[in-house]
Amino acid sequence: MKKTLKAMDLVFPAPVLIIGSYDENGNADAMNVAWGGLCSSNPPAYCISIRPQRKTFENIQKTGAFTVAIGTESLMAEADYFGMVSGNKEADKIGKAGLTVTKAEHVNAPVINEFPLSFECKVMQILDIGQHKHVIGEIVGIVADDSILDENDQINASKLKAIAYEPSGNTYLAASHTVGKAFGAGAALLKK
Amino acid sequence: MKKTLKAMDLVFPAPVLIIGSYDENGNADAMNVAWGGLCSSNPPAYCISIRPQRKTFENIQKTGAFTVAIGTESLMAEADYFGMVSGNKEADKIGKAGLTVTKAEHVNAPVINEFPLSFECKVMQILDIGQHKHVIGEIVGIVADDSILDENDQINASKLKAIAYEPSGNTYLAASHTVGKAFGAGAALLKK
Repeated sequence: MKKTLKAMDLVFPAPVLIIGSYDENGNADAMNVAWGGLCSSNPPAYCISIRPQRKTFENIQKTGAFTVAIGTESLMAEADYFGMVSGNKEADKIGKAGLTVTKAEHVNAPVINEFPLSFECKVMQILDIGQHKHVIGEIVGIVADDSILDENDQINASKLKAIAYEPSGNTYLAASHTVGKAFGAGAALLKK
Repeated sequence: MKKTLKAMDLVFPAPVLIIGSYDENGNADAMNVAWGGLCSSNPPAYCISIRPQRKTFENIQKTGAFTVAIGTESLMAEADYFGMVSGNKEADKIGKAGLTVTKAEHVNAPVINEFPLSFECKVMQILDIGQHKHVIGEIVGIVADDSILDENDQINASKLKAIAYEPSGNTYLAASHTVGKAFGAGAALLKK
């Protein structure tokens, strides 16, 4: 039986994106964003939605740049911590979490060294959507640990062990267990 | 060791969003979109990126509405099929997949009955990002099977059994295995 629920912000699953940015003094900050993902293939680009009160948004406005690190099982506690504390209250969240940064090669934003996969993004557009700012950033570089790459330098999801966010139950999910082949699972229906 | 990869469109994981729309004659179409997700909490809104050549984009422009169904393990083949065939070539993808539709209560778009969770969306903005159109749609209603709800009408992710898309290996992932508590896993770091 179908039920009608009140309109709310749910998706299954959301990614766990750790956004790295510098303030005007070059201090690195990190936040945890779930409302985001890819929004373009050519050029490749991420979109992330952030409330304008966030330190990260202030930083991104000033630098025009940010990094996106993929949340992983091994760094779940650190990723979650970045979502619990405001950069306006704790000036060194990354250090407090025991992590370190290196300036990105292509943009004015920090790469968090311990995360195995980071994307360097340059702001293309910033949009108002309700109470959020929707930031579109072109991916201009990718930094990956060789530990998550296969022999052809392709990212291996079973080595990366990304997590996802489940907003209804407020939990993190494993996002590394393959259940089917895209552009394959539906092939039988093509012949109908 | 860190390696630099060329910029490309990767995220871990992407959701599997089935977009339902009507053409000008009321024929229902469905496509599979991975570049999308939530972009606002208040009002709740989805963003989806679609190439302008797609039948779905033509439909959305005309009706100002679409639905988002969450891809699930039980409907993985159908979801994948919707991503393999163009609505410009096959006029009845939904029927061909053996599925049925009901007009949404709040918008001029079809709800695919067999998917257990659908969001009714009303177009707020359409943006150009590279070769994609980025469509922002306010969530104005949710339709859920009671089979995926718990006793408080909250969506239970372990009953929903959503899938996610892994673009590097081109596979579908299970997105229902909990590995931690959000706003909890990082609590120990708060005390540092």
